[in-house]
Formats: sequence, C-alpha cells, structure tokens
Amino acid sequence: MSPRTIISEEELVQQFLAPLAASAPGAFELKDDCATITAPAGHDLVITTDALTSGLHFFPDEKPETIGWRALAINISDLAAKGATPLHYLLALALPEAPTADWMIQFAGGLKDAQDHYGLTLIGGDTDRRPGVPLSVTITAMGLVPSGRMVRRGTAKVGDRIFVSGTLGDAALGLALRRAPEAKRFPELDKDQRAFLVGRFLRPTPRIELSGLLIDSASAAMDLSDGLAKDLGRMCKASGVGARVSLGKLPLSVAAAAVLAAHPEWAEAPANGGDDYEILATIAPANAAAFEEAALEQGVAVTDIGEIVKGAGVTLLDAAGKPAVLAKTGYEHF
Amino acid sequence: MSPRTIISEEELVQQFLAPLAASAPGAFELKDDCATITAPAGHDLVITTDALTSGLHFFPDEKPETIGWRALAINISDLAAKGATPLHYLLALALPEAPTADWMIQFAGGLKDAQDHYGLTLIGGDTDRRPGVPLSVTITAMGLVPSGRMVRRGTAKVGDRIFVSGTLGDAALGLALRRAPEAKRFPELDKDQRAFLVGRFLRPTPRIELSGLLIDSASAAMDLSDGLAKDLGRMCKASGVGARVSLGKLPLSVAAAAVLAAHPEWAEAPANGGDDYEILATIAPANAAAFEEAALEQGVAVTDIGEIVKGAGVTLLDAAGKPAVLAKTGYEHF
Repeated sequence: MSPRTIISEEELVQQFLAPLAASAPGAFELKDDCATITAPAGHDLVITTDALTSGLHFFPDEKPETIGWRALAINISDLAAKGATPLHYLLALALPEAPTADWMIQFAGGLKDAQDHYGLTLIGGDTDRRPGVPLSVTITAMGLVPSGRMVRRGTAKVGDRIFVSGTLGDAALGLALRRAPEAKRFPELDKDQRAFLVGRFLRPTPRIELSGLLIDSASAAMDLSDGLAKDLGRMCKASGVGARVSLGKLPLSVAAAAVLAAHPEWAEAPANGGDDYEILATIAPANAAAFEEAALEQGVAVTDIGEIVKGAGVTLLDAAGKPAVLAKTGYEHF
Repeated sequence: MSPRTIISEEELVQQFLAPLAASAPGAFELKDDCATITAPAGHDLVITTDALTSGLHFFPDEKPETIGWRALAINISDLAAKGATPLHYLLALALPEAPTADWMIQFAGGLKDAQDHYGLTLIGGDTDRRPGVPLSVTITAMGLVPSGRMVRRGTAKVGDRIFVSGTLGDAALGLALRRAPEAKRFPELDKDQRAFLVGRFLRPTPRIELSGLLIDSASAAMDLSDGLAKDLGRMCKASGVGARVSLGKLPLSVAAAAVLAAHPEWAEAPANGGDDYEILATIAPANAAAFEEAALEQGVAVTDIGEIVKGAGVTLLDAAGKPAVLAKTGYEHF
C-alpha cells in the first residue's frame, strides 16, 4: 500500500486502528459492534467526552499526529483532574473524504503516542465520511477511581487554598504564534522558547501524575481548558463559594514571562488564556504544604494562587492587593 | 423564556439536558467534567458510539424530537443485539448556531421519550457551536451484560439457523417516501401505510425485548443498519463461515409487500435496504423453535431465513433455489 493510497473504511479500522486496541480483550479487535469493559470490584468508571473539529479546535492544516495526540490528551486531562486512572477510549471519526494511508499512519501514531504515554487503549468507535464537512474527532475516555472517590468540581470549601499545576497562559501565547508564525510575533523569544509555547498549545500534557494525590488531598478539582478566571468561576458557582486569586502569584514559564514583559497587551493571558490543560485544585490549608511537596515528588510543580472565600465569583487581586477587572472572560463554546 | 429565545450553553445544559440526568447520581446534575458509572458485581459494561450528521444521516429539516429519538435509538439497537440492558448515555452535540428554547424542548423531548421507553439515563456529554457546520449528534450508549456474556458478531457456527426480527426493507421504502413525499411515490399505499413506512425509517424501535433471549440462545448477533446482505456478510466474515438465505423467506410488512408487488425495481429493498434496526441472530438448530416461541412471547416475531454454512460469503437464493445476484450491496459509510 503506497502512502498515498486512498483507504476503505475496513482498512481504516483494521489496519490503522485495530493495532491500538490489540491489548484490550473487550475491544474484540474492533470487529464487533460494541466493546465490553470490566471495572474491578471497588471501583467506579469515570467517563468523559470531548469533540475536536477542524477550523474550530485545531487548524485545518494541522499535522495528523498532533490532532490524534491532542484529541486524546484533552480527554485524559479531564480524567486526571477527577483522580481517575485512564483505562480505555472510544473514537468517533468523521472524515470529509476517505483518508490516505499516510494520513492514517500519522493520525494513529499520535493516538498511539498518547495512549502509550498515559496507559489507556482504544476499545471501539465509529467512522463516517461526511463530504464537505470538516474533520471531527470525538473521543470518549474512561478511567477508574476507587468507589465513590471521583474528585468533584462542586465541593470546594471556604478556607481552602487554590492550587494550579504547571504554568498558565502558555497555550494562549502558543496559539498566537501558531496562528501567525511568519509574522515574527514575540521577537524577544528564541527558537526554543517559541517551540515550547507552540507545543504547549498543540500538545497538551495531562497531569496524570497528580491524579492519585488529588483523590487523597483535594476537596475539589477540574482541569483548565477555558482559562483560569472562567474555569475557577465555574468551580465557585458549582461549590457555592467565591475565590480570591493574586494575579502576581500565577505561575509563568520563562517564555511567557518574557512575552508579558515585552507586550503588556498580553498581560491577561495567564488568567484568561485557554487550552493550558493544567489542574485547578482546592486543598484544605492543613494539607497544602504536603500536597505541594508530594506533587513535586511526582515531578509536577503546583502553586498556591489564592483561597476559597465566602460569597460568589472570582476576585482577581493586582500587585497592590486591589481587585482587577479583566477585559476578556475566557473561551466561549457558544 | 419565549420559545424563540436563543439560549446559552449553560441554559442548554442546565435547563434542557440536566432533567434527563436527574435520576442518575453519577451524572452529578451535569455540573461536573466527568460522570461515574458503577457496574454491579458480576457484570460487564457494554459500550458503543454512533454519530448522526444533518444532511447525511437525517434530513436538515427533520423534527428535533425525531433527531433526538433516532440518535439514541440506533445506539440502543446496538446494545440490544449484544444482549445488553441499557443503562446510561453520553451526548456530544455540535450545533451550527445557538438553538432556540423551542428547538431544545423538542430535541430533549425526543431523547426523553427514548430514554423513558428503553430505561436509560443521560450522564454527561459535550456541547459545541460550530458555525457553518451541520448539526451533529454523537451518542455513546452503555448497557450491562452478565460478565463475559456479550453476544458477539463473530461467533456464528456452521449449521446455525439465521433469524431476523420484525420485517425488512421498510425503512428503505420509508426513506424513499420521506425524500419525496409530494411525488406520490407508491400510490398503492394508503395514508396509514405510508406513515408506517416513514415511521420505520424516522423512528426505529430497537428490539430490546430480545436482549435477554439473545444471551440465552444466540451463538452470534448484530443489529441490521446497513442492509441484511451487507451486515450478514460482515457476520460471516467475522465468524469465518458462509450463509445461505432464501429471499422468499425475508419477512415483509403488509405495506412493503404492496410496494414490492407494484414496483419490481424495489425488489431488493428487503435484502439491501438499510436502517431497519432489526436483530440478526444465529441460533443452533436445536434451540430454534424455542427461540421463535420465546421471542413471540416477548411480542417480537422472528423469522428463520436461512442457515450458516461452511465457506464464505452470503448466498441469496431465489424462489427456484438458485443463487441470486443483487445489483446493490447495501449502505456504504465510505
């Protein structure tokens, strides 16, 4: 089969996707209409679904392996934030035209990288050709938690410390670079820094190392996909509490810090930028130091950025400790 | 809220979809990022996903309640054929524009009809607005089977009798009527017969009554979505066997029989027409009579249409017992 061969639906499934399901007996080699999952005793299955569409969630000319990695990674990020250990996923693929073998090799390669890295396997899915409609990739991911222990979004408590993992705003800056790479945007960055920021957007790295810790320590958690201000606002609303966050405490990468120093118009990226796929977690004050230390032992830095308070809404404090007002309010799906 | 109010993402989820999840504790009122599922001990979870796109799987002017019912029903049909009892589903909804309250009331009504009828509840999902892209509805449905008992597609045995439920070809004729209702196609039908055929296409009725029986009696089963000849071919290929089917034994509704008598060009509809969502099952000869009787007790007629034989492929026999060649070979997704 030449790399440019246009492939049939059966080839697509059996040659390119079935290998991703080879180690899951319940996938029946992707030759059946359904898959089976056996959750071990004492565990709940945690399930989530997220769809990516060309032109909306990724660039139409994006590399197929990047699309594959990203579609799976953003779902794994949801599982990680809930304390779950990834187990399986389903793939619903809607293609505008029958793909080439080369495209499928790369796309399946991106999925394989992510599933090998995060320890889950394909167990089923659906493929369609939809002429004239952009490529869309819908993943349904499943993981395991001890029974009744899924870390919720709506259970933050007044007095809790608010932590985020990693650094914030990188993906928004990376998206800006990806959008106009030729425009020499952010000339203060060297090549590696630019690649770092673009990579933070294109290839999110779910913080699965933290999932066990979140079950042990977090009163509430979620992943950051639509920007800190917006997502923390959702956590507060679901929990019936408010939050106070010091903007000066938001963790920045070296590259992001350099951009913000040179371009004040990007100052809101850490608070508002989407697609970081870091963890937002609330931790009782007594456990905060231990959480920070244990996270570092797992190789992930976490930063205390504020506290949960009585009331409602997110108050962002500037360097002088005064409430700051943001111009934007995060990513809107609608 | 007026029926014509354009609604926000949060209203869409909380006002129109959360009621569909009210009785599932693991849905967390659709306020979290993931849902949890607890499979009872001694059971496997059976999972499947199918996507419907406007203009490809349903008409752009279709009633929203019909879209809701159909999207859920075709997934339940997969579960039924595998012997599973429906439990939960996820809904990934991609809308070209923010919907009106009226649209959402009808769409959620169609989902509710189906979930009430088939005994499953919404537990989570994803919503996106994708300007310029057709509406798409992706359902991931889950059910339960006793551990290790999912009815497979690839386990038909030489000598088994081949059964189908209900009647075949109705949906293909109903689709033809739905496509050109003004054209007075099939004038030999009365109004009720036309409505029956159109309903068979628009509102499939998964044969969930048979799921327990299939676990007890079937050596293999699948649902018929792409036409008998094609789907039976898939079962044969997966099972490493062949099949001989008597075309004259294919069960027809009164309406379909009337059409076929008047329009020889539709003679292949029962063997080739898609979207019937009936059950195709293979049964050891010793169990065939009991299966037929037990199905009738569940209110579903099943018909013996042929047998599994050594070899490969599906041989269709005409009235004289001679192999017939079909002009078409069923629905192609690609």
